[in-house]
Amino acid sequence: MNGGIGEYSYSNNSEFQRGAIAAAKELINEAIAEKLDIKNFSSSNTFRVTDLGCSIGPNTFLAVQNIIDAVELKYQSQGHSTPEFQVFFNDHALNDFNTLFSSLPPERKYYATGVPSSFHSRLFSKASIHFVFSSYAVHCLSQVPNEVLDKSSPAWNKGSIHYSNASPKVFESYAAQYAKDIDCFLNARAQEVVCGGLMAIIVPCRPNGLPRSQDAIIDTLGSCLLDMAKKGIFSEEKVDNFNLPLYFASPQEVEAAVERNGCFRLEKMEILPQEKPSGNFSRGKVLSSQVRASMEGMFKNHFGEEIIDEFFDSFHKKLDELSEFESGNGGSLFILLKRIATNKEDTVAKH
Amino acid sequence: MNGGIGEYSYSNNSEFQRGAIAAAKELINEAIAEKLDIKNFSSSNTFRVTDLGCSIGPNTFLAVQNIIDAVELKYQSQGHSTPEFQVFFNDHALNDFNTLFSSLPPERKYYATGVPSSFHSRLFSKASIHFVFSSYAVHCLSQVPNEVLDKSSPAWNKGSIHYSNASPKVFESYAAQYAKDIDCFLNARAQEVVCGGLMAIIVPCRPNGLPRSQDAIIDTLGSCLLDMAKKGIFSEEKVDNFNLPLYFASPQEVEAAVERNGCFRLEKMEILPQEKPSGNFSRGKVLSSQVRASMEGMFKNHFGEEIIDEFFDSFHKKLDELSEFESGNGGSLFILLKRIATNKEDTVAKH
Repeated sequence: MNGGIGEYSYSNNSEFQRGAIAAAKELINEAIAEKLDIKNFSSSNTFRVTDLGCSIGPNTFLAVQNIIDAVELKYQSQGHSTPEFQVFFNDHALNDFNTLFSSLPPERKYYATGVPSSFHSRLFSKASIHFVFSSYAVHCLSQVPNEVLDKSSPAWNKGSIHYSNASPKVFESYAAQYAKDIDCFLNARAQEVVCGGLMAIIVPCRPNGLPRSQDAIIDTLGSCLLDMAKKGIFSEEKVDNFNLPLYFASPQEVEAAVERNGCFRLEKMEILPQEKPSGNFSRGKVLSSQVRASMEGMFKNHFGEEIIDEFFDSFHKKLDELSEFESGNGGSLFILLKRIATNKEDTVAKH
Repeated sequence: MNGGIGEYSYSNNSEFQRGAIAAAKELINEAIAEKLDIKNFSSSNTFRVTDLGCSIGPNTFLAVQNIIDAVELKYQSQGHSTPEFQVFFNDHALNDFNTLFSSLPPERKYYATGVPSSFHSRLFSKASIHFVFSSYAVHCLSQVPNEVLDKSSPAWNKGSIHYSNASPKVFESYAAQYAKDIDCFLNARAQEVVCGGLMAIIVPCRPNGLPRSQDAIIDTLGSCLLDMAKKGIFSEEKVDNFNLPLYFASPQEVEAAVERNGCFRLEKMEILPQEKPSGNFSRGKVLSSQVRASMEGMFKNHFGEEIIDEFFDSFHKKLDELSEFESGNGGSLFILLKRIATNKEDTVAKH
């Protein structure tokens, strides 16, 4: 994500993600009221919340405040004294934590901490977290699948930057990488979340039954890069060596992963209503600024800083020319998981 | 502290502080072996350590590793299974956490988190911390005492930037601010540290019996500023409005503060042996780079970035001209405190 607070910063271009959080607010309130087992941990004086892939704010602060308000209400309504709250803001170590920390709400009623590590691994000690939140992060893969960058592989993804619009082999490699990553993610969280604790996850998804999506936005990004390669700004090989580490899972894939893991119960899964971008700018301008805020770093690292303005200018223009976005994106998926005692843990507890 | 890894970064100019940590290593090992009451909390699977005022590394990583190694040894020697470690790196929100996080040791065996807030207030939930470490931080005041900036006060500190070499009234204001700050610090920690937990603090101090120190380094900083004001680079009033928020407490003052607080037992207090700066540079160069790395931000914020190079150049030259440093600094003081159950807590526990 782009740090700071400039024109293309994530802070100033995350309205879309904010919409998804607003849409999830009621679902989270309901989840906390109905599904959070506070009797399991109300003797602990600290309630620990984490936002995985929090980026640099301000959306994370809104989301976290929603959660804390709802938990407070639940404790009060059940006659427990309000716990102290500790919030762990997580993102990878290269996230701009300086911007995040300098914009923490001064009136916050929680102890704020930052956790700079990949959520594909363990981040917290055992059974220490009561509520996990994550919005627009779990679709990021831990790496681009090796095969799609390997010239000798049938899954080599020449001339494309994603599985969108690519061969089925490419899609299979991405799907296998996602399965591996989501298993790591769920295994780590299963260790960290207390029994009775919840995970609320929002991810962009693709509809069930669609084997691989065609995504006009990603395809347009790819075609802008190929145009620049044709102009000789960089080689076509450089484009071949670049793939986006993103995967839009279907609801069925999520369900299968939860089942493989075995430590969580899928309490709810539903598509969130999507708001159209607002404001006076063209839709192309708004979308390209959003994409730039989220992904600029990936393009900069691979193609160099000097190409970035030209690249996003051409992206914005191409988006404006498209009359209709044929997006394979199935919208934002809200997933609610509850950490349950497994058979093995039950046995241990009884003895 | 100066962020990043450049010539005047704290990372590259913190050899002196590293020396103090090395000197404290044995004392900390001894403290953990003899004074840490792990029977009080060995049932918890997480051992939580914090470094308050950690700056941007690398010293903090060395210090934390020492502590963890010693705690592991203690758990093993007493037949307990090794706990998981969570480390909270704390500094104020404007500290360069990005540099800190990107230089975390990859082979670390602890969950790393950053806590961006002033240690004069609460940072953690109740009874959640087992070991507090702090090196060269607790001598920083939460603010410059109001009186020394107030023209109508008898403690107005005209023409000077600290109590060193100033009137007794100025010193009294600083001493009162320190007393207030150390009380806040100890009160917050008393809430956070579990009974049987330890605090190891290293601070620059002044000897007992010396009512206020004359510090050649601070006096030289002040005289460089006055020289620049005389040259018309900024006004003398600008110097009058600037004071360093630092206080070098005596061992007696520390003891009195611990007594006022009442929740800690002073287990040990001793002066650490001091190493001379090494390397091929002049002593003035080494000292001025160290001071610049620690304090540049304060001068930059008040006097502007454009004067910084000239200011530290003249500081370095003046230091080289001084044949002997008449420093009122009484060396580095090692303080070991143990959180004890107070009468009130005992009564609660018995009923």
